[in-house]
Amino acid sequence: MSFNTFGKAFRFTTWGESHGPAIGCVIDGCPPLIQLNEADIQKELNKRKPGQSKFTTQRKESDKVQILSGVFEGKTTGTPISLIIYNEDMRSKDYNDIKDKFRPGHADFTYFKKYGIRDYRGGGRSSARETASRVAAGAVAKKVLENKLGKKFKISGAVTQLGILGCDTKNWDDKIIYKNPFFCPDKSMLKIWEKYLLSIRKAGSSCGAIIEVRANGVPAGLGAPIYSKLDSDIASAMMSINAVKGVNIGSGINSAQLSGEENSDEISQNNKKTKFKSNNAGGILGGISSGQEIIVSFAVKPTSSILKSRKTINKFGKNTSISVKGRHDPCVGIRAVPVGEAMLSCVLLDHYLLNKAQCG
Amino acid sequence: MSFNTFGKAFRFTTWGESHGPAIGCVIDGCPPLIQLNEADIQKELNKRKPGQSKFTTQRKESDKVQILSGVFEGKTTGTPISLIIYNEDMRSKDYNDIKDKFRPGHADFTYFKKYGIRDYRGGGRSSARETASRVAAGAVAKKVLENKLGKKFKISGAVTQLGILGCDTKNWDDKIIYKNPFFCPDKSMLKIWEKYLLSIRKAGSSCGAIIEVRANGVPAGLGAPIYSKLDSDIASAMMSINAVKGVNIGSGINSAQLSGEENSDEISQNNKKTKFKSNNAGGILGGISSGQEIIVSFAVKPTSSILKSRKTINKFGKNTSISVKGRHDPCVGIRAVPVGEAMLSCVLLDHYLLNKAQCG
Amino acid sequence: MSFNTFGKAFRFTTWGESHGPAIGCVIDGCPPLIQLNEADIQKELNKRKPGQSKFTTQRKESDKVQILSGVFEGKTTGTPISLIIYNEDMRSKDYNDIKDKFRPGHADFTYFKKYGIRDYRGGGRSSARETASRVAAGAVAKKVLENKLGKKFKISGAVTQLGILGCDTKNWDDKIIYKNPFFCPDKSMLKIWEKYLLSIRKAGSSCGAIIEVRANGVPAGLGAPIYSKLDSDIASAMMSINAVKGVNIGSGINSAQLSGEENSDEISQNNKKTKFKSNNAGGILGGISSGQEIIVSFAVKPTSSILKSRKTINKFGKNTSISVKGRHDPCVGIRAVPVGEAMLSCVLLDHYLLNKAQCG
Amino acid sequence: MSFNTFGKAFRFTTWGESHGPAIGCVIDGCPPLIQLNEADIQKELNKRKPGQSKFTTQRKESDKVQILSGVFEGKTTGTPISLIIYNEDMRSKDYNDIKDKFRPGHADFTYFKKYGIRDYRGGGRSSARETASRVAAGAVAKKVLENKLGKKFKISGAVTQLGILGCDTKNWDDKIIYKNPFFCPDKSMLKIWEKYLLSIRKAGSSCGAIIEVRANGVPAGLGAPIYSKLDSDIASAMMSINAVKGVNIGSGINSAQLSGEENSDEISQNNKKTKFKSNNAGGILGGISSGQEIIVSFAVKPTSSILKSRKTINKFGKNTSISVKGRHDPCVGIRAVPVGEAMLSCVLLDHYLLNKAQCG
Repeated sequence: MSFNTFGKAFRFTTWGESHGPAIGCVIDGCPPLIQLNEADIQKELNKRKPGQSKFTTQRKESDKVQILSGVFEGKTTGTPISLIIYNEDMRSKDYNDIKDKFRPGHADFTYFKKYGIRDYRGGGRSSARETASRVAAGAVAKKVLENKLGKKFKISGAVTQLGILGCDTKNWDDKIIYKNPFFCPDKSMLKIWEKYLLSIRKAGSSCGAIIEVRANGVPAGLGAPIYSKLDSDIASAMMSINAVKGVNIGSGINSAQLSGEENSDEISQNNKKTKFKSNNAGGILGGISSGQEIIVSFAVKPTSSILKSRKTINKFGKNTSISVKGRHDPCVGIRAVPVGEAMLSCVLLDHYLLNKAQCG
Repeated sequence: MSFNTFGKAFRFTTWGESHGPAIGCVIDGCPPLIQLNEADIQKELNKRKPGQSKFTTQRKESDKVQILSGVFEGKTTGTPISLIIYNEDMRSKDYNDIKDKFRPGHADFTYFKKYGIRDYRGGGRSSARETASRVAAGAVAKKVLENKLGKKFKISGAVTQLGILGCDTKNWDDKIIYKNPFFCPDKSMLKIWEKYLLSIRKAGSSCGAIIEVRANGVPAGLGAPIYSKLDSDIASAMMSINAVKGVNIGSGINSAQLSGEENSDEISQNNKKTKFKSNNAGGILGGISSGQEIIVSFAVKPTSSILKSRKTINKFGKNTSISVKGRHDPCVGIRAVPVGEAMLSCVLLDHYLLNKAQCG
Repeated sequence: MSFNTFGKAFRFTTWGESHGPAIGCVIDGCPPLIQLNEADIQKELNKRKPGQSKFTTQRKESDKVQILSGVFEGKTTGTPISLIIYNEDMRSKDYNDIKDKFRPGHADFTYFKKYGIRDYRGGGRSSARETASRVAAGAVAKKVLENKLGKKFKISGAVTQLGILGCDTKNWDDKIIYKNPFFCPDKSMLKIWEKYLLSIRKAGSSCGAIIEVRANGVPAGLGAPIYSKLDSDIASAMMSINAVKGVNIGSGINSAQLSGEENSDEISQNNKKTKFKSNNAGGILGGISSGQEIIVSFAVKPTSSILKSRKTINKFGKNTSISVKGRHDPCVGIRAVPVGEAMLSCVLLDHYLLNKAQCG
Repeated sequence: MSFNTFGKAFRFTTWGESHGPAIGCVIDGCPPLIQLNEADIQKELNKRKPGQSKFTTQRKESDKVQILSGVFEGKTTGTPISLIIYNEDMRSKDYNDIKDKFRPGHADFTYFKKYGIRDYRGGGRSSARETASRVAAGAVAKKVLENKLGKKFKISGAVTQLGILGCDTKNWDDKIIYKNPFFCPDKSMLKIWEKYLLSIRKAGSSCGAIIEVRANGVPAGLGAPIYSKLDSDIASAMMSINAVKGVNIGSGINSAQLSGEENSDEISQNNKKTKFKSNNAGGILGGISSGQEIIVSFAVKPTSSILKSRKTINKFGKNTSISVKGRHDPCVGIRAVPVGEAMLSCVLLDHYLLNKAQCG
């Protein structure tokens, strides 16, 4: 029963609303003696920061993080790490339009049904702004994993499908991802995607995306039977990200179409190294990591707030309609890339620590 | 840190190995005063029972369940319900072939890497036999939900894609699902699927499947921000089922390809009833149920144990190969249907009870 | 595995060190629609605030709390409530004396043994300053309980034994408790206790205390078999307070000396009201509340930091000695009164909400 | 929210009623590769087994335990260990007397108030029979601790006060404890206690007891700030045992009466060994073990079921009275000794494993 907490051994609790004074998180279970400072976290937050291109939200936030506890003389102490980011761009904008109306595709209707009250300003708690806290927690997790697993450990995420346009993941180039506004890993698609997304933006519409995240250097043996499987926890992590509607491990949904022969990832041994012929399993067998690359992908639905008018009701049960005024965010999925990286980092560290307890 | 426990308010812990003396589960958090007997549970177990057709495993188990605690004079008492199923078909078969070899696609390699020991008989703990315990727990959850939500509540699952062959879910007919060996909901596909699966079986190969589970009569307001979202918990539940590699809510992975207009499920009010124009959201917005039908689907990879020889290694690090002798199970996905129903029932009851605590 | 979180349905996570920039807590699971403002919390914090008399610590803190999330237009929204208190009196004092030495009776030695690092400034995380966060969380719990249980609900705590001096709890007077520096409920002892504590203070020594906390208006039925018993959770809550070494429910340790006849709290019915002849059970039977007054007491050991020199070792394994310079706190137990009230409030609300989930 | 589960990393869930077909537990989180067989568990169960002397309950149970899962070829596998004990002495005795009446001092009234239903046969779930499951779990924990900590690790419990009669714990002799019917550690008191308890039994009355449990060979560093402190978890564990009303760590309640000088357990170093002058802390400082002996004591109230008639009400709200027929158990506290040992073993193993996760 931890509604706003993620994780078992490495746990973080996020708090805060889109237009409240601040957002933040408390990390509990971070091992001691890890070097950590605000720059380590800021670096990751800057990837997710809004207002960096015309293809994402225009909100202006510096997203400057402060460490309030748990770090002493530059090292973690094993006590809770409290992180805070003050909100800046909370314009005294006119919320009358959404105050009483339920935006289709958003959580307005369901929050109101559940709690009988909702902070309607910018989506309140259900805003994607909450994901900044996850990215901060993920930055800490990454730092610990790099310390524990060494240089071979690496996490890398990208948009591999923008609306109806895919890309060739064989062209995956880590170096270009955060240097293009689509977080696309395939240089050959940049122009095509740009033209496509511009047309969607001009039309006042939006599109979804598929994000893929990969982790290398993860040792075999992380995970747990049966209800804390590594893939089960990853699925939970990714599905908890705003607007995510589907999660795949390895070949994922496409596994259904493979034959037993194609799917089974034959194993061989060469000079004390175990090799797998393929990686349909996405690095996880029976809920436990095999030492192969962990491959996860997830689908983000198109931005629900668009310029076109949509039919809806208000909280008094009257039929009405709603549309976004001014500029909008044509693809919320893009900024989910660093969030996916952060969540995978957190799950992996969680299982790294859990494994210590499990195997005694 | 509950490796073999699922749920928060309605919790079940499963135990047992494929070829140990018994398997079972303990349910904690079942509300009192619900009428419950062994027949209620047996009914669901019989759907999953092995050996019912030539298209599934040939193991013979009566899967007879006994209630050992928590029920008094025909009613639940609020104390733990312990359920036990004694294993019967544990043939003193020759396990020498898999004793030291890691079957590709199975958990053999990863369990050994993690624990340094594994019960290799029939997959031990990682066998799909464990799912009988889930079905038993799900039967109890279903009974409670029917009591609390009334007749409008209904769960229904089916195979909607068998290998490369889909079906038309518009033809969904609850009445035929458990009367055909493919648990297919679309009568028009039965012959085609039969021919297809026979050919796969003859070839000594296997295929995957997509299972869809739907719940009707679920009230709005179940779920929780942020890390116990209804969809996040469903994803975790489904991904914990053996051989599942992908999970979708509503339009799922396909959401990425929809436009914002298509995707947003417009809302209207008519005679005090809220209606949604479509259900891409699968009945969940912001992690909370909207009152629409809950729609979940998941992909099961093809059976890893096939007649064809596969390359692998043994626990001494030597290259070798392995193949199944005799008859095999051409599509493990089929019997995942009652398991998916059970897991969805458990998640929904869990959130029904959690909601009571959350809203006080 | 929640090292810094307390509770199941109503959960709070505290963070912060004695001499870090701030301390605080995040409350998760607070029901929606409860009126709450900073003054509600400040009122309780002021009871615990340091520097209010010569008999407690001389640290100067205004302990001003800010609500950063979870409250909208004066009401709780069901989302996490983040509370922060900035530290003020963090004098750039000379910590050289305790930097490398382990103060006997404190957590210095054990934190260092566990983590290999410790924030030695004022005890860091192990400082009683952490209890301010608990009092803040308890204030929220109290507000919710008053809303849910009405005016009959009341929590009241006091020091019932100061060192070797008891008091007569039959003279318990709520109105005087927070008006005397010993939080004593028995007016007749004030002078005697003052003389006693002055002499201890002058001697540079310290004494322990017993705190009793009572809750009235708690309905029957709160609690849970077997490992979330109401008394088991209360024991855990109180034992988690700094320097507490013993916890009693009702007659507590003295129960061992009662006869079966004396102890059994006979029951009778009069005009639809259930009455108990006595309350040795402290309002709890089989881990579940009976509707009687809940009575809890706990012992706080004497302040470990005293003016007299104590033998100890430093982190290099050398024998040395330590003593406090300047003024000291002759009885840390006194300020544990509002902390005990807060913890009991939190446990009671937790079980109030859990009961909703348990009984469906 | 785990009502019938204890522990975080080493978790056990108990189930079963006094007069149902069986009782048992499922252990989750036991490390792999530990040698374990039924005799290891039976040895501990035999200490608690009823019907061994005229001073305890006359129920006849062989308490024969079976391991149903989690052990393969004599070793634990890291998967859940399911233990079952079939009930034998469920005489078709006449329960009419307690069917509708609430026995004072028992959980009858509160279970009925909470759940609206109760299994009245022998106390149902609230019977002390549940503690057999704990002793079984504790036997497994002990086996693991002996494996991990080696021969220096040892747990030992005894009755140190029987009603109004104490004993001299300086005379503590492990060898005599389970060889006398009072589980008394002090040979000099055996005759005196026998005479005292015989007189209580003849009078149809009962008495309480204080149990002390000690653990040696526990390394420094086990525990966690702030809400999973080692002492906080021990208090929760002991208070969850039937009829326990008070828990002390080290000097416990008596700490209140010590001076700061007496209480602070001075530290010294001698040949690389840390020594403490005294052990008022009971081996725990700031919630973390110091490496000293862990000392815990708890009070068990007198048996509530006595031969003397007690006033009570029935479930229809009528005044009535109740008394036990035939022989009774004059001191339920005695058989709590192996239960206390078991619970301390479980808490220590839990924290041993948690520490692995915490410190990474």
